[in-house]
Amino acid sequence: MDINDNEILEVVNKKGFKKIFQFDNKQTIQLQGGHICPEDVLNSEEGSTLTASDGLKYYIFRPSIHDYIMYGIKRHTQIVYPKEAGYIVLKLDVRSGKVVGEAGTGSGSLTLIFSELVSEKGKVVTFEKNLDFLNNAKKNIEKFSKLQNITFINEDFGNSNYKNFFDAFFLDLKEPWFYFEKVYIALKNGGNFGLIVPTTNQINQSINELEASNFLVDEIVEIFHRKYKINPNRLRPEDIMTGHTGYLIFARKIK
Amino acid sequence: MDINDNEILEVVNKKGFKKIFQFDNKQTIQLQGGHICPEDVLNSEEGSTLTASDGLKYYIFRPSIHDYIMYGIKRHTQIVYPKEAGYIVLKLDVRSGKVVGEAGTGSGSLTLIFSELVSEKGKVVTFEKNLDFLNNAKKNIEKFSKLQNITFINEDFGNSNYKNFFDAFFLDLKEPWFYFEKVYIALKNGGNFGLIVPTTNQINQSINELEASNFLVDEIVEIFHRKYKINPNRLRPEDIMTGHTGYLIFARKIK
Amino acid sequence: MDINDNEILEVVNKKGFKKIFQFDNKQTIQLQGGHICPEDVLNSEEGSTLTASDGLKYYIFRPSIHDYIMYGIKRHTQIVYPKEAGYIVLKLDVRSGKVVGEAGTGSGSLTLIFSELVSEKGKVVTFEKNLDFLNNAKKNIEKFSKLQNITFINEDFGNSNYKNFFDAFFLDLKEPWFYFEKVYIALKNGGNFGLIVPTTNQINQSINELEASNFLVDEIVEIFHRKYKINPNRLRPEDIMTGHTGYLIFARKIK
Amino acid sequence: MDINDNEILEVVNKKGFKKIFQFDNKQTIQLQGGHICPEDVLNSEEGSTLTASDGLKYYIFRPSIHDYIMYGIKRHTQIVYPKEAGYIVLKLDVRSGKVVGEAGTGSGSLTLIFSELVSEKGKVVTFEKNLDFLNNAKKNIEKFSKLQNITFINEDFGNSNYKNFFDAFFLDLKEPWFYFEKVYIALKNGGNFGLIVPTTNQINQSINELEASNFLVDEIVEIFHRKYKINPNRLRPEDIMTGHTGYLIFARKIK
Repeated sequence: MDINDNEILEVVNKKGFKKIFQFDNKQTIQLQGGHICPEDVLNSEEGSTLTASDGLKYYIFRPSIHDYIMYGIKRHTQIVYPKEAGYIVLKLDVRSGKVVGEAGTGSGSLTLIFSELVSEKGKVVTFEKNLDFLNNAKKNIEKFSKLQNITFINEDFGNSNYKNFFDAFFLDLKEPWFYFEKVYIALKNGGNFGLIVPTTNQINQSINELEASNFLVDEIVEIFHRKYKINPNRLRPEDIMTGHTGYLIFARKIK
Repeated sequence: MDINDNEILEVVNKKGFKKIFQFDNKQTIQLQGGHICPEDVLNSEEGSTLTASDGLKYYIFRPSIHDYIMYGIKRHTQIVYPKEAGYIVLKLDVRSGKVVGEAGTGSGSLTLIFSELVSEKGKVVTFEKNLDFLNNAKKNIEKFSKLQNITFINEDFGNSNYKNFFDAFFLDLKEPWFYFEKVYIALKNGGNFGLIVPTTNQINQSINELEASNFLVDEIVEIFHRKYKINPNRLRPEDIMTGHTGYLIFARKIK
Repeated sequence: MDINDNEILEVVNKKGFKKIFQFDNKQTIQLQGGHICPEDVLNSEEGSTLTASDGLKYYIFRPSIHDYIMYGIKRHTQIVYPKEAGYIVLKLDVRSGKVVGEAGTGSGSLTLIFSELVSEKGKVVTFEKNLDFLNNAKKNIEKFSKLQNITFINEDFGNSNYKNFFDAFFLDLKEPWFYFEKVYIALKNGGNFGLIVPTTNQINQSINELEASNFLVDEIVEIFHRKYKINPNRLRPEDIMTGHTGYLIFARKIK
Repeated sequence: MDINDNEILEVVNKKGFKKIFQFDNKQTIQLQGGHICPEDVLNSEEGSTLTASDGLKYYIFRPSIHDYIMYGIKRHTQIVYPKEAGYIVLKLDVRSGKVVGEAGTGSGSLTLIFSELVSEKGKVVTFEKNLDFLNNAKKNIEKFSKLQNITFINEDFGNSNYKNFFDAFFLDLKEPWFYFEKVYIALKNGGNFGLIVPTTNQINQSINELEASNFLVDEIVEIFHRKYKINPNRLRPEDIMTGHTGYLIFARKIK
């Protein structure tokens, strides 16, 4: 396997076990009951079968951005999950060349996705007033991506002075309505705006304030993922599912 | 508004009405009860208020990729909806620079998303044996995007000869299992594979055949979107929701 | 078929068609494209195949209480659906011998269920200030049931004077909080209380007022039914489902 | 509180704690961090506040049939939950005077509900070949109910000889299709039949066999309950929900 220094890798087995780690060619990879030697990784290719010291079989991959976000990043905050992030990307029209803003950065999961999808032709500006969160997010992102298109700003977005700058903006903050006017100013005409809130009370207040701030509210939506057990002879959903993460709200800047 | 020839635009009102159309500076835009003159559009900016001939107010935008797919493309087939497409993108690790394959093209909704997200550094190859579908998909895509990174192939994917070529592949075909060996060969080692099927019987057969074809099955999942009425004083979900589109299956190529 | 005068019957076919009607031995039963003669019904048994005038096959039954409520009652109001009603019954401990109150009666769907389940040993008191609604509900109930255990009261429940009388009470009114004190007084110690509201704003207000009225709030819940197409070779959920009817709230009277 | 010997009681607090126990006037009620003395219970009424030895406040009730089934019965098997049971009752038309059959008895949760709702005018016959299960179910039911309308049969339903006897029948067995012919014979003409299965494979086989056994399949449905946190200032669903219990199938006997 042609591995870069400190590259992020993933080992998986057929029982659904997944581990994501930063490869170190001097360090053993500890698993549930056994371990894998770094030489075995160096001699493998993506998708190769590796046999751990306890005889169990594992497969090695470069993780997808989905798996890296779910299992690989260090979380200092609640993250925006891929089930929401994928939809946010399409609603906010995040694609190659776009300029996207975000507050707060949190653990950087959405920042990373935005960065990869706007590509080097685009730009991401992310605001986080908590320096520890910001540094953690930076590390999370640098391990996975070589793109240099993110501006990290260690400040409350309320103190920023962007004007007609962003194609799209996303807010994941406790009292997002305090930032709606700033978002309005920072967005280009017609710009796409998204936010996530965990409670219905926050939806109520957000909608009222969005309308007062001259946004056209487009959609309020929640997203469910329901996974099935991987057993074709006894096909059925998993017993437990995530019942709630947050409500997504989308709007556009109007004049 | 600085509009390109034949550019795709969207008019929206506060009742949830949306219309997407290809702008023609000689043609009136017909709405529900009135119309808008092309000069009014030319004199506007994104997000501007336009007053239709019947006095109703509309807002004008360039549509997001979400809205274009939902309301702008001409459908010759059932499409993959954004609620699934966003998640597919993250699971298949579709991002700048990736090489992604797809069969069939259908109406091109997923093709367009893949194209925009791999950017000009990446590549999309899409197979569709029905020439009418393929031509329709091309038109749908060209209206929205200037990227030249898609290869359209008017052939059954079963006849193709790609080897170790794709980072990711997506199948949306009636009997996908007939193509699993071809996908296996066409994917790079460790490559990401996704498919969508409408019935549980197809899940059963797909899982059995994926395991027989040396894929590691990663996830079987269905996704629900539940929209709320945009009324903060009487906040409640919409009465009717989409109960089913399809089941998503994800796997990785192993050796 | 041993039929009572004016008995309620149901004809069904294998495509999912259902029709509920009051039998009249002089009247033809009109179906989609044909009709069935009353003599054919008189000569049949429950479950018999009847061939309509257009050659299509139908089956005849006495409708279940579920089907009668869904397809047989005349609706002057939004009804409480069986998906909620079944759960309400168990949460409110409605069973043989219980004394149950309800306001408003609406079209009588829940009234009928309560009546059947408390049996002749129990009692139902239902309040409805709209006389047309009340008369319609009475007719709906009389057609299906011979039990004489319901007291219909054509008055706003706010004007009633019941004290320590009900084992359980259910409210389906627009501003239920105006009635919480009356319900508190009308319930026996420890009595079960349930209500249904369509909006989250009403949940907010109801919870606040329930706690202020000395109720112990037990549960806030919404219920989804997801139906599957009856096709075992292509098993999949129906494309469209009910996304929302109402939120259920349950509480108990404490001291 | 006017308590019967060995009566089932429930203590609850405002944090959602619930404990159901058989009252013994010589025995202390152990709670999370403290206990309640039996004299305090004897001196209370339903809904009274009891202060435990650690100063925490609890409320005392007779449990609803819902709570008894969820928290009070001893489970030797997976039970049919109230979210399904309530709907089953309405679909199978279980109400005062009806004759209802069931196999297997399991832990008796559905048996108890059927018994209470057919009342003393009706009858329940339940089959369970595992004697330990049957004895446990009997005890679970006797603690809650004084009705004498259940016949417990310690035999596989396949060995029974009921003919045209039941208004409704419910099967909760691993391979229900082996019993469809017996159910057909045991039901009255037009009788209501329900079953629960955990996998889609079992739906497939059940539908095929039901149609072959001369049943009219009426509905395949799954039911979700989504609970909300009881916090009106931060109203939101619980983070985790039950993703799957089983699929319900309903049919009627035709000729």
